[in-house]
Amino acid sequence: MKLAMVDERLVPIESLDPIYCDRGLYFGDGVYEVLRSYNGKIFALDEHMERFAASLAAIRITNIDIRTVRERVERAFKAAGLPNAKIYFHVTRGSAPRNHTWDPNLKPNFFLTVSAVADHHEEKARGIAVCTHPDLRWKRCDIKSLNLLPNILARQDAADRGCDEAILVDDAGFITEGAGSAFFAIIKRALQTAPLSANILPSITRKFVVKAARDVGIAIEERCITPQQAAGADELVLAVTTKDIVPVVKFDGTVIGNGTPGPLTKALMTAFHKFTV
Amino acid sequence: MKLAMVDERLVPIESLDPIYCDRGLYFGDGVYEVLRSYNGKIFALDEHMERFAASLAAIRITNIDIRTVRERVERAFKAAGLPNAKIYFHVTRGSAPRNHTWDPNLKPNFFLTVSAVADHHEEKARGIAVCTHPDLRWKRCDIKSLNLLPNILARQDAADRGCDEAILVDDAGFITEGAGSAFFAIIKRALQTAPLSANILPSITRKFVVKAARDVGIAIEERCITPQQAAGADELVLAVTTKDIVPVVKFDGTVIGNGTPGPLTKALMTAFHKFTV
Repeated sequence: MKLAMVDERLVPIESLDPIYCDRGLYFGDGVYEVLRSYNGKIFALDEHMERFAASLAAIRITNIDIRTVRERVERAFKAAGLPNAKIYFHVTRGSAPRNHTWDPNLKPNFFLTVSAVADHHEEKARGIAVCTHPDLRWKRCDIKSLNLLPNILARQDAADRGCDEAILVDDAGFITEGAGSAFFAIIKRALQTAPLSANILPSITRKFVVKAARDVGIAIEERCITPQQAAGADELVLAVTTKDIVPVVKFDGTVIGNGTPGPLTKALMTAFHKFTV
Repeated sequence: MKLAMVDERLVPIESLDPIYCDRGLYFGDGVYEVLRSYNGKIFALDEHMERFAASLAAIRITNIDIRTVRERVERAFKAAGLPNAKIYFHVTRGSAPRNHTWDPNLKPNFFLTVSAVADHHEEKARGIAVCTHPDLRWKRCDIKSLNLLPNILARQDAADRGCDEAILVDDAGFITEGAGSAFFAIIKRALQTAPLSANILPSITRKFVVKAARDVGIAIEERCITPQQAAGADELVLAVTTKDIVPVVKFDGTVIGNGTPGPLTKALMTAFHKFTV
């Protein structure tokens, strides 16, 4: 006999939706993606699917075909009928009685939501404030997993300090990335960002920001910078799927440039926009 | 309009059980405990509730009273009618549309299962094999959170190598603890274990193992040891709630002692047993 309790309610465990025993819930044993569409077309779908396949492989979820996932994403997007949609989906290893090891034949669980992309015009026009937070995450941040507790704690801490994003700083004193974004500094007309490694998510938007920088003649320097260097940068930007490029105008209380999005940031935004039409 | 998809099925998100949007699933935004009972009495309930309260506070879940949690645990245990029960429960921050920051008024979700404790007599009599694995976890392992992906990956890797537990080794080359257990070496009649820190769970069973060691006159040395030192130890043991003390007779392929549980391990098990009657 196995008994379960949901809030105040005692129930036989068999009577519950198997999602209550989802390994995604017990262990964060799953991986996810967030996509968006511009005017009826999903942006960088190939890239997101490729990264998702890599995340699945990294945590050894093998019982789901990436083509099935892609087909579901496209079907849900079409069914929603939203030209500018945000699509979130995750795959977990499946539902089973709680046990660290898993049955290799477990059927993965798929979950997706589609909603209208929120309006980010104002924050993109004004720029946002960010603050630093220790990077407490695990050592495989290149995997887009459901283990996001350090990310949300950092982001909430930033929000409590009146900031829109937390910029994570590792033990050596270098910036890795934002809690939910890639981070870039523009110093002397060169775009600086941490090189890809196990400590950083291979951001799709980052890839397109780099491409945009090349298109407008901005040099790329993949190197780690400190918060002090960031605070002294000419311009700062974040990259995130749902908002693409977001100017940063305040860093740990220091006003960046003249406190409004700078000229190279605007040039990057214009160049990025061309990829989306 | 917000559309959801569960496996192949497209549904309005409002039609789903709110657990599909549990922050525990989206982010691992929750904390848990595992307790057991011996002969009708929950072991170390006060200690587990105290640790759980600390975990809740550490991730800033405030909208649930620890007395309510305790009352639910006791009620479920009583209802299950199992003298030797394993009780798992977690509290997540609650269900809400996916967003890193949270509404402070969100109602936390509580989930619990009670089942019979599995029979561990044989592995306790024979001893188990363990192998090392890099400790890839985050920097707040003192919080018993639902972010357990590195733990399950390490444990599965151990299982694939014919071992029952993964012993985690940090970047400096020192053992922290097991993927789901506390780890102890007995070297020259002294019990060695890593001191409590942000990298280690404050194990309740560890506390009672230390007490048992004192009762039988074994010295305690809180210090970090290397895999080499562990492989050369006189005896090795793990501590875990559901099995209390488990002898380790093989470490990364090296036979410990004569390959059977040693005399001090047996003395510790006998002393621990007294706490449970």
